[in-house]
Amino acid sequence: MPIDLSYSPEVDDLVARTSEFIAEQVLPVENRFDGDIEAAGGDDLRRELNAKAKAAGIFAPHAPVEYGGLGLNMSDRSPVFTAAGASTFGPVALHIGAPDEGNIHMLAHIASEHQRDKYLGPLATGEVRSAFAMTEPAPAGAGADPNQLSTTATKVDGGWTISGRKRFITGADGAGFYIIMARTAGQVGDRGGATMFLAPAETSGISVDRHVNVIDKSMIGGHCEVTFADVFVPDEDVLGEVDEGYRYAQVRLGPARMTHVMRWLGSAQRAHAVAVDYVRDRDGFGGKLADLGMIQQMVADNEIDLAAARALLQRACYELDQGEHASDSTSIAKTFGAEAFCRVADRSIQMCGGLGVSADLPLARLADELRPFRIYDGPSEVHRWAIAKRAVGRARKAAQRRGDHA
Amino acid sequence: MPIDLSYSPEVDDLVARTSEFIAEQVLPVENRFDGDIEAAGGDDLRRELNAKAKAAGIFAPHAPVEYGGLGLNMSDRSPVFTAAGASTFGPVALHIGAPDEGNIHMLAHIASEHQRDKYLGPLATGEVRSAFAMTEPAPAGAGADPNQLSTTATKVDGGWTISGRKRFITGADGAGFYIIMARTAGQVGDRGGATMFLAPAETSGISVDRHVNVIDKSMIGGHCEVTFADVFVPDEDVLGEVDEGYRYAQVRLGPARMTHVMRWLGSAQRAHAVAVDYVRDRDGFGGKLADLGMIQQMVADNEIDLAAARALLQRACYELDQGEHASDSTSIAKTFGAEAFCRVADRSIQMCGGLGVSADLPLARLADELRPFRIYDGPSEVHRWAIAKRAVGRARKAAQRRGDHA
Amino acid sequence: MPIDLSYSPEVDDLVARTSEFIAEQVLPVENRFDGDIEAAGGDDLRRELNAKAKAAGIFAPHAPVEYGGLGLNMSDRSPVFTAAGASTFGPVALHIGAPDEGNIHMLAHIASEHQRDKYLGPLATGEVRSAFAMTEPAPAGAGADPNQLSTTATKVDGGWTISGRKRFITGADGAGFYIIMARTAGQVGDRGGATMFLAPAETSGISVDRHVNVIDKSMIGGHCEVTFADVFVPDEDVLGEVDEGYRYAQVRLGPARMTHVMRWLGSAQRAHAVAVDYVRDRDGFGGKLADLGMIQQMVADNEIDLAAARALLQRACYELDQGEHASDSTSIAKTFGAEAFCRVADRSIQMCGGLGVSADLPLARLADELRPFRIYDGPSEVHRWAIAKRAVGRARKAAQRRGDHA
Amino acid sequence: MPIDLSYSPEVDDLVARTSEFIAEQVLPVENRFDGDIEAAGGDDLRRELNAKAKAAGIFAPHAPVEYGGLGLNMSDRSPVFTAAGASTFGPVALHIGAPDEGNIHMLAHIASEHQRDKYLGPLATGEVRSAFAMTEPAPAGAGADPNQLSTTATKVDGGWTISGRKRFITGADGAGFYIIMARTAGQVGDRGGATMFLAPAETSGISVDRHVNVIDKSMIGGHCEVTFADVFVPDEDVLGEVDEGYRYAQVRLGPARMTHVMRWLGSAQRAHAVAVDYVRDRDGFGGKLADLGMIQQMVADNEIDLAAARALLQRACYELDQGEHASDSTSIAKTFGAEAFCRVADRSIQMCGGLGVSADLPLARLADELRPFRIYDGPSEVHRWAIAKRAVGRARKAAQRRGDHA
Repeated sequence: MPIDLSYSPEVDDLVARTSEFIAEQVLPVENRFDGDIEAAGGDDLRRELNAKAKAAGIFAPHAPVEYGGLGLNMSDRSPVFTAAGASTFGPVALHIGAPDEGNIHMLAHIASEHQRDKYLGPLATGEVRSAFAMTEPAPAGAGADPNQLSTTATKVDGGWTISGRKRFITGADGAGFYIIMARTAGQVGDRGGATMFLAPAETSGISVDRHVNVIDKSMIGGHCEVTFADVFVPDEDVLGEVDEGYRYAQVRLGPARMTHVMRWLGSAQRAHAVAVDYVRDRDGFGGKLADLGMIQQMVADNEIDLAAARALLQRACYELDQGEHASDSTSIAKTFGAEAFCRVADRSIQMCGGLGVSADLPLARLADELRPFRIYDGPSEVHRWAIAKRAVGRARKAAQRRGDHA
Repeated sequence: MPIDLSYSPEVDDLVARTSEFIAEQVLPVENRFDGDIEAAGGDDLRRELNAKAKAAGIFAPHAPVEYGGLGLNMSDRSPVFTAAGASTFGPVALHIGAPDEGNIHMLAHIASEHQRDKYLGPLATGEVRSAFAMTEPAPAGAGADPNQLSTTATKVDGGWTISGRKRFITGADGAGFYIIMARTAGQVGDRGGATMFLAPAETSGISVDRHVNVIDKSMIGGHCEVTFADVFVPDEDVLGEVDEGYRYAQVRLGPARMTHVMRWLGSAQRAHAVAVDYVRDRDGFGGKLADLGMIQQMVADNEIDLAAARALLQRACYELDQGEHASDSTSIAKTFGAEAFCRVADRSIQMCGGLGVSADLPLARLADELRPFRIYDGPSEVHRWAIAKRAVGRARKAAQRRGDHA
Repeated sequence: MPIDLSYSPEVDDLVARTSEFIAEQVLPVENRFDGDIEAAGGDDLRRELNAKAKAAGIFAPHAPVEYGGLGLNMSDRSPVFTAAGASTFGPVALHIGAPDEGNIHMLAHIASEHQRDKYLGPLATGEVRSAFAMTEPAPAGAGADPNQLSTTATKVDGGWTISGRKRFITGADGAGFYIIMARTAGQVGDRGGATMFLAPAETSGISVDRHVNVIDKSMIGGHCEVTFADVFVPDEDVLGEVDEGYRYAQVRLGPARMTHVMRWLGSAQRAHAVAVDYVRDRDGFGGKLADLGMIQQMVADNEIDLAAARALLQRACYELDQGEHASDSTSIAKTFGAEAFCRVADRSIQMCGGLGVSADLPLARLADELRPFRIYDGPSEVHRWAIAKRAVGRARKAAQRRGDHA
Repeated sequence: MPIDLSYSPEVDDLVARTSEFIAEQVLPVENRFDGDIEAAGGDDLRRELNAKAKAAGIFAPHAPVEYGGLGLNMSDRSPVFTAAGASTFGPVALHIGAPDEGNIHMLAHIASEHQRDKYLGPLATGEVRSAFAMTEPAPAGAGADPNQLSTTATKVDGGWTISGRKRFITGADGAGFYIIMARTAGQVGDRGGATMFLAPAETSGISVDRHVNVIDKSMIGGHCEVTFADVFVPDEDVLGEVDEGYRYAQVRLGPARMTHVMRWLGSAQRAHAVAVDYVRDRDGFGGKLADLGMIQQMVADNEIDLAAARALLQRACYELDQGEHASDSTSIAKTFGAEAFCRVADRSIQMCGGLGVSADLPLARLADELRPFRIYDGPSEVHRWAIAKRAVGRARKAAQRRGDHA
């Protein structure tokens, strides 16, 4: 079968309808509230936009068909999520934002029948939101380094008791339930020994302590600090196998990483479009700004960065759809994408001069939405470390095969 | 006389006292209000901090001695302003912020006796603030391109009548008086033909239309749009000669550009210090973060960027103190500095991970304070254009001297 | 049909056989002669390697089947050419180097029956080499700016007389025939008015004046200055239509640009592999070099750059195979690729320390092979200009459709 | 005493005479031999140029006055060495190249009376050249990591016996004597325990095994591999104290690092000048190349990089002249300078298009001269590591003083 990089007419049509929906139903709200989703209504807005998205036939296109989704694979998801990302409220509107999208993805792969009914169903249909509680505050605690996991789950009769503190738990405030990563074996500093648990938000012992005031403003429920104090989880709410939490996290993280890229690609493309519109007919320095070489360089560099991010994203999605682990291609697409999007936003600001750093244009706040992505889901440095380790490992194995012991 | 790059003991002492004042009197206020100077009290805060700075003997160290200042030259100003810049409220506290600092500098050079009494005195002592009305909104209007100046001054009996609109007029809201740049000869698109006028803020016809909501929050009076509608200015309030406005603007801009670098250097150094403090003892990945190679690379790149900015700044200040025009060295120090400071802030954020993009650390807001500097006072692109023009011009002249017509 | 980014088993097999051939038959020769193809035997070496490649069934995989090639489309060519590019002598060995490969491609699309017999056949089978004479020396003359074309063809009885000078004509010395671009209409400075002509190298009036001593050493026949002095070309050797030369040049340039990327991608991947092999087991600073964070950063950045170049290349090849003009995707893949490959070579050198800048490793000469690619086939700046013009043009049209006249 | 960044009239005059000498006596030779100093005559050329430099009164301006030098301090040396660096043969012509310049500097500080007569005198007057044998080949051996020192000196009656292998020993072939770093205490992997020895090149047991073929071609005597096989050195030829070798190496390295920057700054400035001359009057794309925005950006970026390197160099020289260790400022000036000079050379090549990568212009070979500097004298990565360690160490100490144990 020959190489084929085109989307089916059905996907193209879905993309077109998504773009239209975003432009007409979502962007005006986002702009009116300067991109602050809580100010714009929070969960009330979410429910309103979800209903409209359902009516438009574009709601949760990644969700399993049995829950009313379109069951799109990663490749097909990509242009749709990107179209939705043109508004920072778009992911919430289509119910494809973090962490719900990744949680739906993981639950669809791992959840038991009971868990599908209790958690996945309400989540996939948008009845509730969810949170994924993995990251922990320093000094001890798993930030970017998962070996530091210090929240513990102790086996008790009929279930487990979980205690610990988590930080940067996106969407925690107002979530219907949590997926909690806790240590069930080993010590802080050990690799492995983690298990995933499901728990309704109203479970005794779970408390949202505060919102960490982060520069992005489009994720409902904020980025919270959450305390788990002797939280009881029955055995039936253990997600997957005990001690296999990091393996599942990887199942979740590869695709979730790519859907981050999809959505933020949409935001970066929008920033670029705003800047190109600004320079295309604006006068200055004896001509149009768009005719100045240094402006053209910024426009071209944006185009190159965006094209490369798209191409890397398509590669990673294809590999994931083939059932591959795709650790390399997703790390590469994530790292390149996050850095490229920040460059694109920065150049877009620069092209627009004083207005670029003002609220008259959405560029500064798009830059604020994009900047954290170089840290979220693994800082660029951690991904580079992993990419290098694997590259060196491959070279070492190849050398052994060749009998080369240089 | 041998090369000497050291400051006198008097300056070193002033720097030390300034740093102490900032740490004890200014930083706590800034942090309490997340760097938003209006929220922190605006002009009330300014007067309070000015009084404290006067008590500490560090107020307006650049102002002429006759007005109570210390009359420091550019070289000596540099480390003091940098020390003050460690807090984003520091420049207001010492009365060395834009645009007042540059206006004091220019008035001290150009103002008539009458104008010194009426405008410079109250400004130098901090009795009033001032604004410098040059930049104009597009489409017509002088943004980064001064040839586009479209605000006009028409000669009338006993003075001039000024009409036009200005944008990004820093400190306009609450200013005691304006320095207004208006066209007195030629057409929009012509170089030259500009004159500077002085006008009390309460002059009929001057109105502040709105604050442009810009990402920096530490300049009192904001960045405003101002309308001048038939504003009458008597002949005695023409600043300098008619039609010589751009020449004076250059007098103002070279030094003002460098004091920008001084202050923002202070902010960038602070961001770096916050990040180094973060990584120095934090555990992760089997050691201290500060022992990781990629972190060390960021620390070192910050050190290099800051050292280069300091060195270029010292060069430019020295040339200005020698009475040179210093167009090249100030453009270079400004362009390099602004870009370096943004890199430093960005790396500092990255080193601190999730906290870096949160309000738990001051890094994200320092980045917001620094980012506009790549646009204010001439975008990097305009400075590069000017630097290149001069370099090519020098080469062309040298070739002519050599009789080389390649 | 779903997205498919995998090559067929036949192509995978061809790639594997190509890699094996390169490793066993070509690399040892290249290394023995430090990558200098003339020193290694020039055309004698070429004929010897071509015979071996034919025997291995991998000769000219892009050539039409009727001439013994494999008729691969752009997508399938890509991994094969890349495998061949692992040696700088590989493209000559497989007869897929510039300019022959692009000339075969263009002649297969445009040549008349007569021209196919006289020129394409001998070229496709490797009997002769060819040259493409477009670029001209300054001051007048078409370097990167095709409007400057000053070589002229004058209509005479039964044909045309061509006069002019060309520079950087790759492979001219020893070529069997030339494709010559000459002006048949308009003046220097005009766009268009160019025609392509075919002429045997022994035609009266054609002389190779000198080799320009360029830093790459792997292209047979060098980069020459050639004079055309009243060169007669009969009408039957006009290639395509009169005055349509630039249109054909575009037909040639898009694919030729991509085959450059394919080959040089192979060289860049090799440089990276050499460096990774160097650092993987070398001791230093208390461990393996490959465990140092700053080394890992270089390894990872190489991986990212190479992956992005591959992904952009695949995108561009796919579009070309769909019959699209692919101006944007080929410009982007070329510009990104050329710059990325230089970065990869530079990092690879840096990873190997002193040996990296020595002839003990092939890195410095690979860097010399790669550096010109940022200039050949259109400097990065010209591509960026074209990319920006198209992006702004699209935005302008979209605005007109929306009725937005900002 | 006020800040003073100007050179004395005497130094300015020396700079002018040096520039004139280089332009008239040195550059023509360099260009005739494409920058290959061995092809140009090697030591014969050196003696000829040295005689001319003596006649011009500019020979060895850094050497002690008692040996006929001018005894310039680091600050004053700087512009003179930079002027000499405008030709890659300039340092040899003035006898200010590596390693002689650094060896003169170190011997003047450390050598005993006997050693001054026997070694320093002949070296300072240019009668002989010298070599500095520190770097060793991997796997064991001190490359960039001095702890790996494996050449050993064993105490014997009346002196020491040295055995080991060295690599990248600049100027070894033809040197009159060596300064040899050998281990006198501890094991490979230990810090310290090194001693410096002086030995005439004709000492039994010293052999130059081969020239490492490195891309720079302007250093006489090449970069050699040298074997020391039971080389006897009498006690009187131990340089300084036993086991203090690394301390002396630091004495040598700080200044030597800066004189590298001085010389290569000269080369980088020349590359920039060649490129600016190229673009200033060349036509293309409807105007002069120098009027194109992307060209202007490259010109300006070169100007900025060069200005920053000069400013950092001046700072480091000043500190060295004050008797400071200046580890930070020399590491920063070296790291920034080496990288900046490579960027400058690369942009200069790019500005000149096809000619830039040809031998028609000296740019490609200047790039080859400059590239190794990012590795020689400590790779950038090692300097960054050291810069970061010190920065973090300072922060740690400051925190302890504040009682802050975060």
